[in-house]
Amino acid sequence: MDRRRFVTLVGSAALAWPRGLAALARRLEDSGPPDGEEFWQVVRSQFSIPPERVYLNTGTLGAQPRIVVDAVVEHTRRVAESLPPGVRWDDLKGELAALLGADPAGFVFPRNTTEATSFVAWGLPLGRRDTVLTSDHEHVGGLEPWRAACARRGAELRRVHLPATPADPDELFDVVAGALTDDVRVLALSHLTFTTGTVLPVARLARLCRERDVIFAVDGAHPPGMLPVNLDALGGDTYASSPHKWLLAPQGTGLLYLSERWRSGLHATLASGGWDNLELGAHRLNHMGTIDESRLAGLLAAVGFARVLGPERVERRLRTLSGRLREGLAAIPGVRIVSSGHPELSSAMTSFTLEGVAAPALQRHLAAAHRVRTRVIGEYGYGWMRLSTHVYNTPAEVDLVLDAIDRVARHGLPRSGPEGGEA
Amino acid sequence: MDRRRFVTLVGSAALAWPRGLAALARRLEDSGPPDGEEFWQVVRSQFSIPPERVYLNTGTLGAQPRIVVDAVVEHTRRVAESLPPGVRWDDLKGELAALLGADPAGFVFPRNTTEATSFVAWGLPLGRRDTVLTSDHEHVGGLEPWRAACARRGAELRRVHLPATPADPDELFDVVAGALTDDVRVLALSHLTFTTGTVLPVARLARLCRERDVIFAVDGAHPPGMLPVNLDALGGDTYASSPHKWLLAPQGTGLLYLSERWRSGLHATLASGGWDNLELGAHRLNHMGTIDESRLAGLLAAVGFARVLGPERVERRLRTLSGRLREGLAAIPGVRIVSSGHPELSSAMTSFTLEGVAAPALQRHLAAAHRVRTRVIGEYGYGWMRLSTHVYNTPAEVDLVLDAIDRVARHGLPRSGPEGGEA
Repeated sequence: MDRRRFVTLVGSAALAWPRGLAALARRLEDSGPPDGEEFWQVVRSQFSIPPERVYLNTGTLGAQPRIVVDAVVEHTRRVAESLPPGVRWDDLKGELAALLGADPAGFVFPRNTTEATSFVAWGLPLGRRDTVLTSDHEHVGGLEPWRAACARRGAELRRVHLPATPADPDELFDVVAGALTDDVRVLALSHLTFTTGTVLPVARLARLCRERDVIFAVDGAHPPGMLPVNLDALGGDTYASSPHKWLLAPQGTGLLYLSERWRSGLHATLASGGWDNLELGAHRLNHMGTIDESRLAGLLAAVGFARVLGPERVERRLRTLSGRLREGLAAIPGVRIVSSGHPELSSAMTSFTLEGVAAPALQRHLAAAHRVRTRVIGEYGYGWMRLSTHVYNTPAEVDLVLDAIDRVARHGLPRSGPEGGEA
Repeated sequence: MDRRRFVTLVGSAALAWPRGLAALARRLEDSGPPDGEEFWQVVRSQFSIPPERVYLNTGTLGAQPRIVVDAVVEHTRRVAESLPPGVRWDDLKGELAALLGADPAGFVFPRNTTEATSFVAWGLPLGRRDTVLTSDHEHVGGLEPWRAACARRGAELRRVHLPATPADPDELFDVVAGALTDDVRVLALSHLTFTTGTVLPVARLARLCRERDVIFAVDGAHPPGMLPVNLDALGGDTYASSPHKWLLAPQGTGLLYLSERWRSGLHATLASGGWDNLELGAHRLNHMGTIDESRLAGLLAAVGFARVLGPERVERRLRTLSGRLREGLAAIPGVRIVSSGHPELSSAMTSFTLEGVAAPALQRHLAAAHRVRTRVIGEYGYGWMRLSTHVYNTPAEVDLVLDAIDRVARHGLPRSGPEGGEA
């Protein structure tokens, strides 16, 4: 780890950071080589997931490090003591901008990607002659707001079929570009699909959309906290995210980043005083009445945690874990890995099938027999098992899950195994 | 206190109630006469407002009792441990229905009144020929969503002037009824004004609206937790509230109650899977993606707390406190009480002016010199001081504030008094 980088980080952000974060940065600095197991053991020690539980569903919801929980609890107690709130918008926006390569003025804080996407879908002047183009790999949170807005406005919602296992980014780009007919007013796509963890070529698509005068609304629920993200370099019109996934913010913490045009151009969906004061820019949309400010405190702590770990280091670690998982899965008889293996397409979510075993049955077995939490991608009839690997997961956990799946592959599911646990 | 009532409450709700609530109920039962000071001292001991602070701004945000904070913290820790959430919708809806005289199937849980009102304003099929009638005593949370929807849909928003100090409910009813012309499609009014704490004759107005085929959207931000409320007896079409005020739920906890017609009739504003499944009724609108379930846990605890205290007992206490405040204010030279003194109109919020002293200056003085938190009603140019008295306030606190105001009335504001504190 680069000592100067830490010193700079700690020095510049000391006022905004929650208590304990600078101390954690120094502790990590002293914990052996920055990509070594000792370093990651210290990281793991920041979480309160019980050691006997293997949590492989960050793609649905992250588990928060203690520094985030502490920030939430501290803020909750402040409010109960009738003290004024402790988070300043500017601190939060500044920290996020530094993490995500963005302009602090572009951030809005809805509760999740669904709400962020709803703000965009209702906020645009969609009309009867417009088409919104989406895909068959979109999450309900990135899809249903468009379906609702199109239904009400008489616009058309069209889906392009994306290959589940694309060979390379060009294949994905060409498929989407080919579907971008002249009637398309909005392209609504995932940055990283929830179905397979596939990274879409967003920057190239954004350039294409600008050329064609198409509004590009990106569902970025997953990347922040999983991959290094530079929002301004990506260049879409709007970027919706759920920091309560990979960024490990508290449950119910969303994010919407607006390019300059839409900071004054989007109509407010939730409207409190100032919603139509265009001088406020994107911040207008944060005027939504009394919000739970502990989400902001928790998000600020989560961003600090992510900056201390470093997005590039996190990405390397997650690639190590998902690479180990993928290699192991490939060696199990009957496993078919759905997620693309191309290095520019793959991420920390891996989807697969096991021949002869339905995903929900495998999921129940892993939960009941091994306390492993997973996600089944039942959407669109896919029936895939999805495993998310994050910084709190270990190589040993990956091996445990591989061993469990291998035994099912070789011997089938136990006839009357232990039941219970959770799906 | 009626022992059988407690036993019944504790017995029937034991499964849904948070830990500690039954114990609190028994402790209260043993604390002298149910309306005596000892009882209210036990209640006060449930809060963590420091004894040197006088919090008279529940009308903006309540201070949570420890049982609510504990529920929030416990749920936050569960999520951080990757455990599944601990609140069942049915428990929460059932408890609320019991407290508020409502059908459990009618409840939606937005983050506040602003969002609840936005759900209604966008969800109705408002058109170009429609008028929404509101008043000059509406809060931004109950007003701006209508302004936003009318602006976008080309509907008209019209304000009726309400008397600030009405003589009786008839006067209010007649003023509103007189403004209900044939073009009015929606009546959007407060149940209890944030400006003066005046209770509007909602049940009578609801009957009138039914006769005239007008949709009645009630802004009920304040009454739940302050007054006994029977939503079904009130009879409006929609009722928006902010349980983080008088019901003492966590910050960012809202409520929307829909009459049967609108459970399937309102278009979803935030749309996740199932938003258009009309069989889900009002619960469709709770499909808004991943929410912070600690709000639900905290709200459930807050409702339990309110039921243990008893809405009628709370109302008597608040009337005692606000009556003491009002009597004291009336005796101070230069004070003009704006809030109506009629027993059917008055509530636990009291607004007044002090001759020669601007409300913001008085507010700053009370905060800096006496650590008293208040609210200035600057909206609509009114310039009134508003004091909220809730169960954690004491007769001694009321006397302290009266004494402070009396000194300002007699001697003016100190020239260079202590500064700081908060407004």
